[in-house]
Amino acid sequence: MSSTNTILTQLTTTPKEKPTVEQLGFGKHFTDHMFMMDYTIEQGWHNARIIPYQPISLDPSAMIFHYGQSVFEGMKAYKTPAGDVQLFRPERNFKRLNISNDRLCIPAIDEQFALDALKQLLSIDKDWIPSEPGTSLYIRPYTFATEPFLGVAPAKSYHFIIIMSPVGAYYSEGINPVKILVEKQYVRAVVGGTGEAKTGGNYANGLKAQEIASKEGYSQILWLDGKENRYIEEVGSMNIFFKINGKVITPALNGSILAGITRDSMLHLLKSKNIDVEERRITIDEVVQAYEEGILEEAFGTGTAAVISPIGQLKWQDTELTVNDGQIGEVTQMLYDTLTGIQNGTVEDSFGWIVKL
Amino acid sequence: MSSTNTILTQLTTTPKEKPTVEQLGFGKHFTDHMFMMDYTIEQGWHNARIIPYQPISLDPSAMIFHYGQSVFEGMKAYKTPAGDVQLFRPERNFKRLNISNDRLCIPAIDEQFALDALKQLLSIDKDWIPSEPGTSLYIRPYTFATEPFLGVAPAKSYHFIIIMSPVGAYYSEGINPVKILVEKQYVRAVVGGTGEAKTGGNYANGLKAQEIASKEGYSQILWLDGKENRYIEEVGSMNIFFKINGKVITPALNGSILAGITRDSMLHLLKSKNIDVEERRITIDEVVQAYEEGILEEAFGTGTAAVISPIGQLKWQDTELTVNDGQIGEVTQMLYDTLTGIQNGTVEDSFGWIVKL
Repeated sequence: MSSTNTILTQLTTTPKEKPTVEQLGFGKHFTDHMFMMDYTIEQGWHNARIIPYQPISLDPSAMIFHYGQSVFEGMKAYKTPAGDVQLFRPERNFKRLNISNDRLCIPAIDEQFALDALKQLLSIDKDWIPSEPGTSLYIRPYTFATEPFLGVAPAKSYHFIIIMSPVGAYYSEGINPVKILVEKQYVRAVVGGTGEAKTGGNYANGLKAQEIASKEGYSQILWLDGKENRYIEEVGSMNIFFKINGKVITPALNGSILAGITRDSMLHLLKSKNIDVEERRITIDEVVQAYEEGILEEAFGTGTAAVISPIGQLKWQDTELTVNDGQIGEVTQMLYDTLTGIQNGTVEDSFGWIVKL
Repeated sequence: MSSTNTILTQLTTTPKEKPTVEQLGFGKHFTDHMFMMDYTIEQGWHNARIIPYQPISLDPSAMIFHYGQSVFEGMKAYKTPAGDVQLFRPERNFKRLNISNDRLCIPAIDEQFALDALKQLLSIDKDWIPSEPGTSLYIRPYTFATEPFLGVAPAKSYHFIIIMSPVGAYYSEGINPVKILVEKQYVRAVVGGTGEAKTGGNYANGLKAQEIASKEGYSQILWLDGKENRYIEEVGSMNIFFKINGKVITPALNGSILAGITRDSMLHLLKSKNIDVEERRITIDEVVQAYEEGILEEAFGTGTAAVISPIGQLKWQDTELTVNDGQIGEVTQMLYDTLTGIQNGTVEDSFGWIVKL
């Protein structure tokens, strides 16, 4: 589709009441409007529109209900102390959406057009962006198969939608390091599968292990690779970093790990602070050994929702590893403060990451 | 929920025109009614109802669009020459649905109640079951997450739905053995993942390799295991069998292979005919070696839609293996004739597989 495609706009006549900051939570409230466009073989992506937030009606045979052909993105808009609205590396999200689309055989979107559409939607619903410290507007672009057909093949029709949810401070009571269970039995993804794509099946797959871990008192799963069950891949739905003997290590992207935008930003921040950083394969055995040698200094997950989630404890088989006495580490705290500062406009962006509305 | 739960029935006032046998195809037309029930934490499965086939309305944040929490089943109803309506091992489908539900953290359904509901739906729409040779009514029970929430966790609300589609003869021009590409790069599933469950993500995952294979002139993918990329798992969305030197071999169920009901039925049929059969691990190298020794006699896929799909040619790297001169094999034909005969009521069912309406 052409970037000059116009977006039909239909404003709501019944605006909703906005939640108070106490009511916010995560992903529960949605703004007054949504962006939507449709794909057909004949017309490509078309019928771009901003409309009141409303239910989607689908045939019971719509392929999304049966064959999982869906991808999504997650990003945030922030209101700066000066009242500006800004996005963080949004072009990376739309680029990754198309990488996911390609893996799932979903037709590509025009990334620039999607970003323009998001900006229009944001300008209409900008009063929904909360301004209290730590709050933001979570943005969810997603694509899914709509064709009414029970057959295993790429669909011939799709929706692309953007919805937005004002969200509260992820750490309303301060950042508390979490307890993580290293998973032996279940596997999130394997090379040759969809681990690199942001598609529903990866998340559905992870629910079972998460449910078991929760019952045992752990916040999240640390996932090992699917081939040898010893290389560290991700934690929950975040990328993972370790600080061992002064050096920061994160698993190299291998085809089964999601290429996190927060992960990439952390790598840039670390380099800019002259902290040694390595992207490479790392086994759980190496982490245990570092712990036993007393050089496992910090561990944390990274992702859009929480930005950073410090790991206070890891359990692998019968071994309990307490990291940094269960306290947030110095580098973890610095990365969190710097990145959230850039995102909310209180720290200067020397990387060119911020896109103002 | 209790099996004595009553099913509210609302009949259509505008019955649709039924497709002619020429128009049937697969999964394109749907009957006049559908079965539906809902799940909430508070009420469990409730509101069981048979209603006119109609669109489903969901919030744009409904979890099915984002996190892939869905499972499904596929089965068929047949009209016998005597005009009876019969199902084939339907209790196995509902049992497997619950196995899939468990893997995907979806609350279990009452299997007997679901079968009773299906029978009621069938009795209402029985005129939709085509009676021409090879035709049947394809039945699609499925469950998916409906909760409006952007968070990675098992949903708190679901739909369970049954829709039905009259389908044409799968082999309208006779059974033609197909060309299969053995996949090197992409992986369908891995032990510890969801391969054993009938969930959307498995099917979405397979689309990319299928698309590439189609462009190269192959009908389907033969999937190898995700750990060592050499053990044979499935073909397309079917289980696979080889006849080597008089013995029939199918990969043993290992956690990443779907436990096909047609597969299980074939094993019973083979044993009843005193044909040697083995469920065990088998590598692609063993198949190639058997081919080179001239003892690869037959190969076929099995599944609900096609029952049997004979394999005429396999391509693995640079080797092209032609099976049985590209003709359907004797055992393959016998299995197809016997099983379809039992299903459509022309061969006596000595296994207790048939459930009459």
